[in-house]
Amino acid sequence: MAFDYEEIDGIINAGSMAIVGASAKPVKFGSLFTATQLGFGFKGKVWLVNPGEKEILGHPVYPDLASLPEAPELVYLTIPAHRSMDTLRECARLGVKGVIIMAAGFREAGEEGAALEEEALRLAREGGFRIVGPNCFGIYNPRNRLALLPGHDFSHTPGDVAYISQSGGFSAHVGRQCKGLGIDFSAIVSYGNGADLNEADFLRYFAADPQTNIIAAYLEGARDGRLFMEALSEAAARKPVVIWKVGKSESSSRAVTSHTGSLAGSSVIWEGLLRQCGAIEVSGIDETCDVLLALKHLGRKPGRRLLIAGGGGGLGTYAADLAEEEGLEVPPLGGETSFRLRAVLTAPGASVGNPMDIGTPLVLPEVFEASMREAAADPGTDILIFDLALNFGYGLGGEPGLNAAADTLLRVRREIGKPVVLALYTRAIGIEDMHFEEILRRLRSRLLEGGVPVFPSMRRAMRALTLINR
Amino acid sequence: MAFDYEEIDGIINAGSMAIVGASAKPVKFGSLFTATQLGFGFKGKVWLVNPGEKEILGHPVYPDLASLPEAPELVYLTIPAHRSMDTLRECARLGVKGVIIMAAGFREAGEEGAALEEEALRLAREGGFRIVGPNCFGIYNPRNRLALLPGHDFSHTPGDVAYISQSGGFSAHVGRQCKGLGIDFSAIVSYGNGADLNEADFLRYFAADPQTNIIAAYLEGARDGRLFMEALSEAAARKPVVIWKVGKSESSSRAVTSHTGSLAGSSVIWEGLLRQCGAIEVSGIDETCDVLLALKHLGRKPGRRLLIAGGGGGLGTYAADLAEEEGLEVPPLGGETSFRLRAVLTAPGASVGNPMDIGTPLVLPEVFEASMREAAADPGTDILIFDLALNFGYGLGGEPGLNAAADTLLRVRREIGKPVVLALYTRAIGIEDMHFEEILRRLRSRLLEGGVPVFPSMRRAMRALTLINR
Repeated sequence: MAFDYEEIDGIINAGSMAIVGASAKPVKFGSLFTATQLGFGFKGKVWLVNPGEKEILGHPVYPDLASLPEAPELVYLTIPAHRSMDTLRECARLGVKGVIIMAAGFREAGEEGAALEEEALRLAREGGFRIVGPNCFGIYNPRNRLALLPGHDFSHTPGDVAYISQSGGFSAHVGRQCKGLGIDFSAIVSYGNGADLNEADFLRYFAADPQTNIIAAYLEGARDGRLFMEALSEAAARKPVVIWKVGKSESSSRAVTSHTGSLAGSSVIWEGLLRQCGAIEVSGIDETCDVLLALKHLGRKPGRRLLIAGGGGGLGTYAADLAEEEGLEVPPLGGETSFRLRAVLTAPGASVGNPMDIGTPLVLPEVFEASMREAAADPGTDILIFDLALNFGYGLGGEPGLNAAADTLLRVRREIGKPVVLALYTRAIGIEDMHFEEILRRLRSRLLEGGVPVFPSMRRAMRALTLINR
Repeated sequence: MAFDYEEIDGIINAGSMAIVGASAKPVKFGSLFTATQLGFGFKGKVWLVNPGEKEILGHPVYPDLASLPEAPELVYLTIPAHRSMDTLRECARLGVKGVIIMAAGFREAGEEGAALEEEALRLAREGGFRIVGPNCFGIYNPRNRLALLPGHDFSHTPGDVAYISQSGGFSAHVGRQCKGLGIDFSAIVSYGNGADLNEADFLRYFAADPQTNIIAAYLEGARDGRLFMEALSEAAARKPVVIWKVGKSESSSRAVTSHTGSLAGSSVIWEGLLRQCGAIEVSGIDETCDVLLALKHLGRKPGRRLLIAGGGGGLGTYAADLAEEEGLEVPPLGGETSFRLRAVLTAPGASVGNPMDIGTPLVLPEVFEASMREAAADPGTDILIFDLALNFGYGLGGEPGLNAAADTLLRVRREIGKPVVLALYTRAIGIEDMHFEEILRRLRSRLLEGGVPVFPSMRRAMRALTLINR
């Protein structure tokens, strides 16, 4: 069907909704999603529908859609596949705008399921409504507080990243991990089999959506290759688009077919296609989140020339190896920068150069500040990247010392204007070391709030910097 | 100098020691190492030497080595480079066996330092003692409780892994991270510039050491390529040897020279050399620890054929992609295994195959147990690898549910004898999510104690499995 911005917008920004199959019985998706949505504070009316229940969490339950006081704009279906068709007919009759079908058991499950999916699609076409799914979670939108995924604790703050996913689980994983990284969303859409609205539709929608500045997606396949390629090219010309495409091996493409019934396609074709369209290709949830974090704080193509700093000679050497592997640059320091740094870093064990070794992870605050300022002022590099093993740094300055170092890096970033990136991690990972993890999370928040992206390893930092420069 | 097992053994298993430059002044390495060693409970005599101090932490301090009641077997020098020569002369006169020189400012610092290093070496040759360092931390040995690195909380339990490192920081990092993974050491040796005893000596020593079953090393260069290659080949023929070699790029090889004064050499030559010698080449501390963990629980070459399982279709698809990238195999399930699994995994959303999707991360205990048993019994695969997003699993069964799942996997591993591996992680990484991290660490310990290695991501698990199969 032709792309229609308003149709999709009507679903994502729905003003009223009904949950069909709402339940109070624990361990059912119906109850999990009902509780999540009720707790999340949807800004319009929510009606619950289930002929077998009377009340859920203090809300009345209606026996069917026809009994509702008015027709909902959006219907969320949590009932089994084979029992969904009658409800879809009712949706058509009532004039709802969109239906999210959560249940599995459609195309991905074989012939019988495929017939059901065809029937659902026919009912949607005739009834004038659009379908998200089936075999999906649904939509998270902090603006109208739609929370149709396992995300009761998701952020209420609207952001500018849109995430589109064929996997429901991944949509929840990305949302949760990004929350810990201070990345907020315009919306997350889990669309499963994509029987009706698919990747091309959502790409076009978020490309046009004024709230969205960055788009990321998890794809198992594309319904229509040509349409998808057009949508992707158009979207990538307007904003960064991050694509994770799975199903490139024989075994994973078997899995794709049984997961969302998609045709995965060959890896070579996909890689070429994504590059040609201007997308950033990633692999895995971690890499997706790392790239979103890098894009948020550094933008697209911030430059490849790194100044690597840290306390310990091995760290810098390793980081330089990683940079070279990734195609980033670690140019020798300019003469003037070297001269100025040599006046600051005088202790034995310190080494002025690129990579630069300040001696230990934390040095005297005035030395740390002066060396970071001189390093950031180096005109031959685009980004200052600092390596900090937090448990080691803690031993030298405690949490106040770590906070002071973080504040120095934030000041340098603000006053000198050079992007600063941190690899921040702890090697103390035992049960008895939880306090280091707590300090790490506090320190990470402090840095993220001030515009310094923090990655859990030098390897992941280097990879993210490489990808946003492509 | 010719390799002499007893000489090195006399240092690593020293029965008495003196710390020259022992200090009570905070923020100095001298005080950090003194406090660490005194707290660690060295099993022989420890004397403290410093003409400027009288008592440290209740221990008397001697003005010089000559004033000690008897000559120490091992001397730990924490005084600056230019002041070390007189003490080395005293070491020669007293007949000590070994001296660890911690200070930087030797060969890595330029001409003047190189002359000092030559002089130290000459004094050692003439005086009949061996040097570890300079520009290093020193030795950790849980058997005699030597703890000459920032490792006050290191394990007291002797293990069978030896770690050799040119970087002091990395020696401490690997020790601490491995502690959290339940990996114990025969010894850790940080040897810095390797002026006297070097990588070849320590490789030969640990190859012959009956306490050591696995050797790992961090190298910036090799003093003598031919000797090193011989030592490595001999060691790798007797036990797994894991090598991390840095300095492969132009910028990192600049850094190597200023760090430990080594000549890094070209990456192509090194990669070929390491492969030819039978070593497992790794990159980074995380990868080093991941491979040590895999070797501990699975041994060398446990097989490449994986059965991938988890709750969620996307996870398995991704894991299969990773496996293919790494050269591992994900063969289709055998007919009988499929048949048996289909009788167990009947819920919509589950999918029998390889990768196998049990539907959600945790399912009913009896379904989980039955499906894991059937999966582990599959004759066509060598390893069962399970993906568990802990925060998601927690939502379905709480900590008891997660523990029950872990116990099931441990039982399957024990009773069926098929190696089981877990990718265990949490996507809840905010400050408010610390309880998930606590549960994760408890669950990881439970699994590690039962012989199931746990990796923080599917990517890292796949990489480790690839490397131990090389």
